[in-house]
Amino acid sequence: QFSLFLAAQEHPNIMLTKAGIDNVRKGCTQYPLLQQSFAQVKDAADKAVEGKINIPVPKDGGGGPSHEQHKRNYQNVLACGVAYQISGDAKYASYVRDVLLGYAAQYEKWLVVHPKSKASNQAGRIFWQILNDCVWQVNVIQGYDMVYDAITPRDRKTIENKLFVPVLKFITENSKETFNRIHNHGTWAVAAVGLTGYVLNKPDYVEMALKGSDKSGKTGYLAQLDQLFSPDGYYTEGPYYQRYALLPFVIFAKAINQYQPERHIYEYRNKVLEKAINTSLQSTYSTGVFFPINDAIKDKTFESAELVYGVDLIYAEMGGKADLLDVAQKQGRVIVSDAGLKVAKDITEGKAKPFQYKSLIITDGAAGNEGGLAVLRSGSNNDQQCLVFKAASQGMGHGHFDRLNILYYDNGSEVFSDYGAARFINIESKNDGEYLPENKTWAKQTVAHNTLVVDKTSAFKANLNEAQSHYPEILYFKGDGEVQAVSAREDKAFPGVSMVRTSVLLHLPELTKALLVDVYKAESSAAHTYDLPFWYNGYVTDASFKINAFTDQLRPAGTKYGYEHLWMNSNDSVPGGSGYITVMNNKRFYTTHFAGGSVLNVKTVSLGANDPNYNLLNAKAFILSRSQSHDQTFISITESHGLVDAIAETTTGAKSTVSGLKVIKADRDGTSFSFEVQGKVYQLIMNYTDKNNFIQLIK
Amino acid sequence: QFSLFLAAQEHPNIMLTKAGIDNVRKGCTQYPLLQQSFAQVKDAADKAVEGKINIPVPKDGGGGPSHEQHKRNYQNVLACGVAYQISGDAKYASYVRDVLLGYAAQYEKWLVVHPKSKASNQAGRIFWQILNDCVWQVNVIQGYDMVYDAITPRDRKTIENKLFVPVLKFITENSKETFNRIHNHGTWAVAAVGLTGYVLNKPDYVEMALKGSDKSGKTGYLAQLDQLFSPDGYYTEGPYYQRYALLPFVIFAKAINQYQPERHIYEYRNKVLEKAINTSLQSTYSTGVFFPINDAIKDKTFESAELVYGVDLIYAEMGGKADLLDVAQKQGRVIVSDAGLKVAKDITEGKAKPFQYKSLIITDGAAGNEGGLAVLRSGSNNDQQCLVFKAASQGMGHGHFDRLNILYYDNGSEVFSDYGAARFINIESKNDGEYLPENKTWAKQTVAHNTLVVDKTSAFKANLNEAQSHYPEILYFKGDGEVQAVSAREDKAFPGVSMVRTSVLLHLPELTKALLVDVYKAESSAAHTYDLPFWYNGYVTDASFKINAFTDQLRPAGTKYGYEHLWMNSNDSVPGGSGYITVMNNKRFYTTHFAGGSVLNVKTVSLGANDPNYNLLNAKAFILSRSQSHDQTFISITESHGLVDAIAETTTGAKSTVSGLKVIKADRDGTSFSFEVQGKVYQLIMNYTDKNNFIQLIK
Ligand SMILES: [Zn+2]
Ligand SMILES: [Zn+2]
Repeated sequence: QFSLFLAAQEHPNIMLTKAGIDNVRKGCTQYPLLQQSFAQVKDAADKAVEGKINIPVPKDGGGGPSHEQHKRNYQNVLACGVAYQISGDAKYASYVRDVLLGYAAQYEKWLVVHPKSKASNQAGRIFWQILNDCVWQVNVIQGYDMVYDAITPRDRKTIENKLFVPVLKFITENSKETFNRIHNHGTWAVAAVGLTGYVLNKPDYVEMALKGSDKSGKTGYLAQLDQLFSPDGYYTEGPYYQRYALLPFVIFAKAINQYQPERHIYEYRNKVLEKAINTSLQSTYSTGVFFPINDAIKDKTFESAELVYGVDLIYAEMGGKADLLDVAQKQGRVIVSDAGLKVAKDITEGKAKPFQYKSLIITDGAAGNEGGLAVLRSGSNNDQQCLVFKAASQGMGHGHFDRLNILYYDNGSEVFSDYGAARFINIESKNDGEYLPENKTWAKQTVAHNTLVVDKTSAFKANLNEAQSHYPEILYFKGDGEVQAVSAREDKAFPGVSMVRTSVLLHLPELTKALLVDVYKAESSAAHTYDLPFWYNGYVTDASFKINAFTDQLRPAGTKYGYEHLWMNSNDSVPGGSGYITVMNNKRFYTTHFAGGSVLNVKTVSLGANDPNYNLLNAKAFILSRSQSHDQTFISITESHGLVDAIAETTTGAKSTVSGLKVIKADRDGTSFSFEVQGKVYQLIMNYTDKNNFIQLIK
Repeated sequence: QFSLFLAAQEHPNIMLTKAGIDNVRKGCTQYPLLQQSFAQVKDAADKAVEGKINIPVPKDGGGGPSHEQHKRNYQNVLACGVAYQISGDAKYASYVRDVLLGYAAQYEKWLVVHPKSKASNQAGRIFWQILNDCVWQVNVIQGYDMVYDAITPRDRKTIENKLFVPVLKFITENSKETFNRIHNHGTWAVAAVGLTGYVLNKPDYVEMALKGSDKSGKTGYLAQLDQLFSPDGYYTEGPYYQRYALLPFVIFAKAINQYQPERHIYEYRNKVLEKAINTSLQSTYSTGVFFPINDAIKDKTFESAELVYGVDLIYAEMGGKADLLDVAQKQGRVIVSDAGLKVAKDITEGKAKPFQYKSLIITDGAAGNEGGLAVLRSGSNNDQQCLVFKAASQGMGHGHFDRLNILYYDNGSEVFSDYGAARFINIESKNDGEYLPENKTWAKQTVAHNTLVVDKTSAFKANLNEAQSHYPEILYFKGDGEVQAVSAREDKAFPGVSMVRTSVLLHLPELTKALLVDVYKAESSAAHTYDLPFWYNGYVTDASFKINAFTDQLRPAGTKYGYEHLWMNSNDSVPGGSGYITVMNNKRFYTTHFAGGSVLNVKTVSLGANDPNYNLLNAKAFILSRSQSHDQTFISITESHGLVDAIAETTTGAKSTVSGLKVIKADRDGTSFSFEVQGKVYQLIMNYTDKNNFIQLIK
């Protein structure tokens, strides 16, 4: 047991601080971004204050009325807290007090197991799962901190004893399992408890938050910082959950830094928190959209609140660079806080620089040796080519069976995409807004990805425990020069099949855009069927072979591992095993030249079979396919070319300038092939056995 | 034969004039929009001058290399003409001269029938169809006019005698049929000939352009102005072709006004040209996209060059209002011309006002009595609801069999949409960029539209001549107030079936957005199958009944009239014949409540069957369906509600607030029904026999 915090006498003391408040108040009239951000907060606060307080008995699942009302309540409490601090108007403080007293009057009467709770997650008391209760508390305690001085000691006592202390107990006792989980739900739990412990001056709870309920340090916030992030700051569940997980990490870190600066929490584990925020930003395409690997909602961008907190905090308190101001500008708001003040001020002073997107490899695993996520980029932020290569580990329960998957972006659009999660988030009529059954039967399966499927199954036969215990080996990475490349090996996903994939962004002097070159090699002593899907966006406008789409009947492409959800649209044998297919997408053309041995089929499929409840979105793929093959190499070169100007009705460059793809060698040790660009012959050689001379371009 | 034009001694004298040139030159440095517009032209001109002149022997179809090169050539000639006038730099004039001498050296050697010509259109000599030759000439002659004074008389003689005079002859003689057509191809032809006649001072050709090759006035420009537009300025082929047709009308009008102001061409037929331009703008949704009725490429907006000419000209020369400046700003450019100068100047001076979109009915037919296009609008330009009701006539060869079709927009998106044309314009691999066979088998058919299909056929059995000889009768139109409505009757589309459709934008005090109420009544003494499709965008998220999507096999929904292109996805009988279906589209929900008698089926379909060449785009519909019915009334109320915020992951208002749709009366004379909104009961009564009391809302 340690002593009470000195700083605990001061309120507020988290994102807004007593020391900073005068400057923030002034900044709200000086710096446009802070001014607008406060105007939004104040607008929300005013709407709240004008409305009627509504604290319904918890009843509904995600997206339902009581769920949404409790969510609004915590947003209102936070907004009114900020509005009170900046404006000094007591009505906002009164609102917060009344809401909290309202909860205090009811909270202990509510069921300890929410009526809509599910076996998959520990129950909340306000929401269907404890996670949302913790999010609620993280927000509400900040609002309370901001109006603390405006509430009478008597009311504070009621609020603390009848609401916050029971919440602390509920999280640490009823939900002990979640509280001690090394998992993003655990982070929300420890942040809720830790922040509340600081504000209520209860060091015991802070200690539990930092070191787990037994205070041993095996669980809790610090153990989460140790184990949930790789040394590069990668969160194993992937960018979507990384972003989500960041918020409690960031807010709690800020509180720790305020109350116990001696912990040097920002420096912890070589500044892992700062790395996590930077890695999160680097896990977006130049439009700000997060790479949707694993369970991910696809429209999510770095504009989300978590990254607003993250960007403001690393810029203001961790020495972040001026290119973060570019992100802040795109976010269009700052946190009304000491950190937000600095960001808004520096933007006003013209310090912003374009965000520096990088080609990089982000290692996975607590020790950084469990594969990783590779990102290759080319071009300006306005027209960026971006290849994402997933050689990371499984990523726990939200992971997809997508070993060596690639995602490819160009021209502000997805070219080869990942389906993300099968979920209509917060739409009650769709499984209460939760993951749909098709998330498991479709979205997680291998065939839903741009990676090799062996014998129409999924990697690890879609067994999570099996998948979780293996990870790919990164063979090669080079993030600059004319041959940017990444290569990785996966030997365990399919029994008896060893796979190496090598993806390249190749810059040739004849072309303004890089070529995406992709070589997927599989070795096996047994015969297999190999399917390599390319999930494309747009419409097929040309092909070297005749695509004979089925005209009068569609049937599913299989019965399991996701194939049951695919309508088979065509299945054509390609003479000579090589050819091309051209897709028009967002006013540009993408021609994929391919070669895969002497007998190759190209199938086209569309998503939607065995979907009685219309839970699946539109998606289309072409699949390079070989059957009865032992060793197999698929080579493809995708050129981005041309321009469709729909307004002027002009089309240029609709034909690919690449031709003559010829395989020279494709065996276990290496792959080499040649192709022509505008009459000039190039040869690419990959030596899988020589890391020092892995790829060679011969001109 | 009349005398030579006085003004013909002056060059330039069309969009740029000798009298205006000094001011335009100055304006190019003073007014940002003109400055940018000139910078773009100059950039194109500089690229042209730096490049090599290339005049290929005509060879390819639309989108092919020689096609695109000849297109670039005319663009370059025009750009260099302007660049010469503004900058005075002789290199631009030399470029134009050299290109024209190049054409002059070859033109007469080229085949008089282009090798890629098709039976459907008269052949060009430079392009596959004469239309493109005329467009070429309209542009090139303007470029020539601008550099006229910089070319030696000797070179002018060569250019005129070896190129322009042969072109004049080719158009008026070899292509006489097109030249004398009352049709947009004819307009390009007369504009090409008329402009050339003015610039070359050949009044005979001008006279032919104005009054037809026999100068009788039965054809030619004036006859086209009389016959191609309705008194409201509607062009019977629809907004897409209206826009396209406008350019030659506008440019030729400007030339006539310069050379023969005594013709008062702007005043002609009650200012029909000005009306046509205004009607064209009113034929767009608030995003600027043209309503894609009939054969239309869907991405087309008022940013297209034709409307830049149109807007600049009516603003500067026909007394256009200040809200046109809003359109000009969105166009982002002006014509570098006397008119563009005025637009750019007035924008700089802050005179722009938001464009005034209107609810209006635009009559069709030369006498204005052949039906019309009704448009109902509600809300600001940022979030406009817009209902388009097509009660116009067939619209000639590009018309679709879509009697009483509706299109519905909201929130910047299509809610119920029209497929437009089946065409990948300018993409050579897709039927040389021309209309695809599916334009006829699919896009024109009735089932491709949001209108009634009887017995799975198409209106007029898809017979153009039959369709062209009948048009709907407009029964009622009211474009303001709480009940905006349009109603029309069509008795000839399906033998023995009389149809009346009434569509309403209904403003209720409980709702911020209007409700779309739609009542489709069919009468027949015989039993029929009635299908009413709603072609929706987005995803079905909810329904009052269980949708049982077919899981393991899809079959086409029929064998002809477009049904052969539909995969039948589900077919459910709806208990009681009424219910709702909710679609999520662009972050908003659209719930369609419907009632259609005691036994009603809802089918869902998706486009793509019998499409061996992948020529069709994605499209989905739900279809209200009755079989064995004599008289039939389909009532629907579509509510726009809720908000999905993907960044914040919040969803509000996912449930419709409309309920309890009850049919009170549905017979030949009238329809009445009631429904509830937030507990309040409303009743709508339609009296088809009483035009003075057509619709009543009872509260
Ligand atoms: Zn995935
Ligand atoms: Zn149509």
